[in-house]
Amino acid sequence: MRRRGRSAPGSCCRRRNWSCSVPELLDSAIDEELRRFFADARDRAGAYGSHYTALWESIEQQSSGGKRVRPRLVWAAYRGFGGSERALVTRVALAFELLHTAFLIHDDLIDRDTVRRGAPNVAGRFAARAAAHGGDARTGEVWAATAAVLAGDLALSRAHRELAMLPVDRACRESLLDILDRAVFVSAAGELADVVSTLDGTTPALEGVLATLEQKTAVYSFEAPLAAGAVLAGAPEAAVAALCRFGRLAGVAFQIVDDVLGVFGDPVVTGKSASADLREGKRTALIAHAATTSSWPAIRDRLGDPTLDDASAEGLREELRACGALDAALALAHEHVTLARYELDAAELPPALRAELGEFAQRATERVR
Amino acid sequence: MRRRGRSAPGSCCRRRNWSCSVPELLDSAIDEELRRFFADARDRAGAYGSHYTALWESIEQQSSGGKRVRPRLVWAAYRGFGGSERALVTRVALAFELLHTAFLIHDDLIDRDTVRRGAPNVAGRFAARAAAHGGDARTGEVWAATAAVLAGDLALSRAHRELAMLPVDRACRESLLDILDRAVFVSAAGELADVVSTLDGTTPALEGVLATLEQKTAVYSFEAPLAAGAVLAGAPEAAVAALCRFGRLAGVAFQIVDDVLGVFGDPVVTGKSASADLREGKRTALIAHAATTSSWPAIRDRLGDPTLDDASAEGLREELRACGALDAALALAHEHVTLARYELDAAELPPALRAELGEFAQRATERVR
Repeated sequence: MRRRGRSAPGSCCRRRNWSCSVPELLDSAIDEELRRFFADARDRAGAYGSHYTALWESIEQQSSGGKRVRPRLVWAAYRGFGGSERALVTRVALAFELLHTAFLIHDDLIDRDTVRRGAPNVAGRFAARAAAHGGDARTGEVWAATAAVLAGDLALSRAHRELAMLPVDRACRESLLDILDRAVFVSAAGELADVVSTLDGTTPALEGVLATLEQKTAVYSFEAPLAAGAVLAGAPEAAVAALCRFGRLAGVAFQIVDDVLGVFGDPVVTGKSASADLREGKRTALIAHAATTSSWPAIRDRLGDPTLDDASAEGLREELRACGALDAALALAHEHVTLARYELDAAELPPALRAELGEFAQRATERVR
Repeated sequence: MRRRGRSAPGSCCRRRNWSCSVPELLDSAIDEELRRFFADARDRAGAYGSHYTALWESIEQQSSGGKRVRPRLVWAAYRGFGGSERALVTRVALAFELLHTAFLIHDDLIDRDTVRRGAPNVAGRFAARAAAHGGDARTGEVWAATAAVLAGDLALSRAHRELAMLPVDRACRESLLDILDRAVFVSAAGELADVVSTLDGTTPALEGVLATLEQKTAVYSFEAPLAAGAVLAGAPEAAVAALCRFGRLAGVAFQIVDDVLGVFGDPVVTGKSASADLREGKRTALIAHAATTSSWPAIRDRLGDPTLDDASAEGLREELRACGALDAALALAHEHVTLARYELDAAELPPALRAELGEFAQRATERVR
């Protein structure tokens, strides 16, 4: 099934790196804030034994190595509307980064994954820890599940706390909490829909695939961070609403391309197997289009076969190309980018922000990883 | 392993029902607030399909049937310090009830339980739902785990939100958020310690057992609700601190008795098997005491045997009685109640609250279920 944010939607092509257009200050501010938060948590955890300290270390490890897409969007919207309080926006950015961390950990738990970004995740680390303490495989599974449940709960709780404790006026804080509430509510709906649709055996329909992408990832990863940054800077309601629409559309475009790269990307560049999604039978825009063509019976028979070898995967890729699914998926991503840019143009936004976000969306279809 | 709040610590003996000493208004206020909250959530979920609505129904079902111990403690402390805003205290009580719901759901996930209070839990309902949609056993497991992860996250998020949105002044709200933060942080430490200690094969030590009871259950179920009610009513810091100490001690006493009832209680009255904890090898004060006696080798060999039959369980109970473990555990519970009452007497508390809580603690050792 689809893992939330399995690859970073905001990863950018090599030629035009989005990080160049936002202050490098951001990365160091967020990293510094995360370091401070985790150092405090580890200190506090020390009173409860080495396993609990190790749990916090595993959350910190899980939160590192990401591309900080959500903090960057918070920051871009905040700066775009004239916000200048770096300490404040960093805390909001931290909240969305920890929300993402929580979702990654709980997503891996659902998928029973023990590796993320090429390294053991929270569950993987605690399975190894159980083995190091002489535990058998069953013990390892229980330790892994326990650690993943608790780590996600702790990161999720901190995301809420960061916004709840923010030193801003009540109206602003409550707006931010509403944004967070919607992000949690909608992404849970999307995650459930994704799991249920992957396993229910019906033919994937494009409409459902797109709705799931939006709900599961675009809302919490794009819409919510942009809205939060804008609200924090005191942006007008209409502008916030436009950013939300933009975020959903751009987020869906990113995810469509992400799924295309999961099948057609160069594993050396993407860092991901190009056969895993095919073996898993992941329901993507690519597959939904293929299901409307005469090639579908041949594709369907091999899709989701966990024993699919690389040669068969290559054959399946050829079928997907030949039936027009690859072109259709890329066209759909382009269409979403066009609609996203239209939202920017139709709204009264500061010109610099419009330009920055327009460029950001454009890169959705130019990514190689 | 120990499930948080598997039986309600505040369940009371039949002769002296604690609920008689708090207004019946409370139960109806909490039930009404929960009903309203879940009705809103179901309405909102409707836009995301029937599975998501079913998920919310399963959270509601999970939150019903409990004994509302935590809301009652919030209420008792609030009323005890002269608080009179029912709408306000009900929201705080709701937050702690939903925190409890979240923990129960995630505990069951860790334990892979599919039944709670004699009925299918969130996971059990979604496993059945998968089967009804033609899913195989593996599909049922994935749906169950997904539902349990998300349901816990949603309930946990709502607990945070209730306090974060509370219409009180900043200092009060931040104190409440600190109480919640500690409850989440410490109970995660206790849950992890419990899982790790159950599976690591070492001899259980009393000190560790008691620390785990305090961390895993007493802090979030007793200390935090009492502190929150008192803070909301504007109680002095010293009084809040005394209630915290009382809550931890009384909470541990309740859990010791709970564990005794899990082995020696009448299943007809407790509603729980009297052999399950022995088959599971649960580490309780009872077992920790037994481990210090010459009977331990004989007890250890049978403890945790999942095939233990009722006759062997009865033999094990006899051993636990004969070696003095039952008496020792009950004495330990009494000792905790005495210390808890001492905290009440040593602090400057409103006399009615002192009497109410003293009686509440006393019943810890008189419970039959």
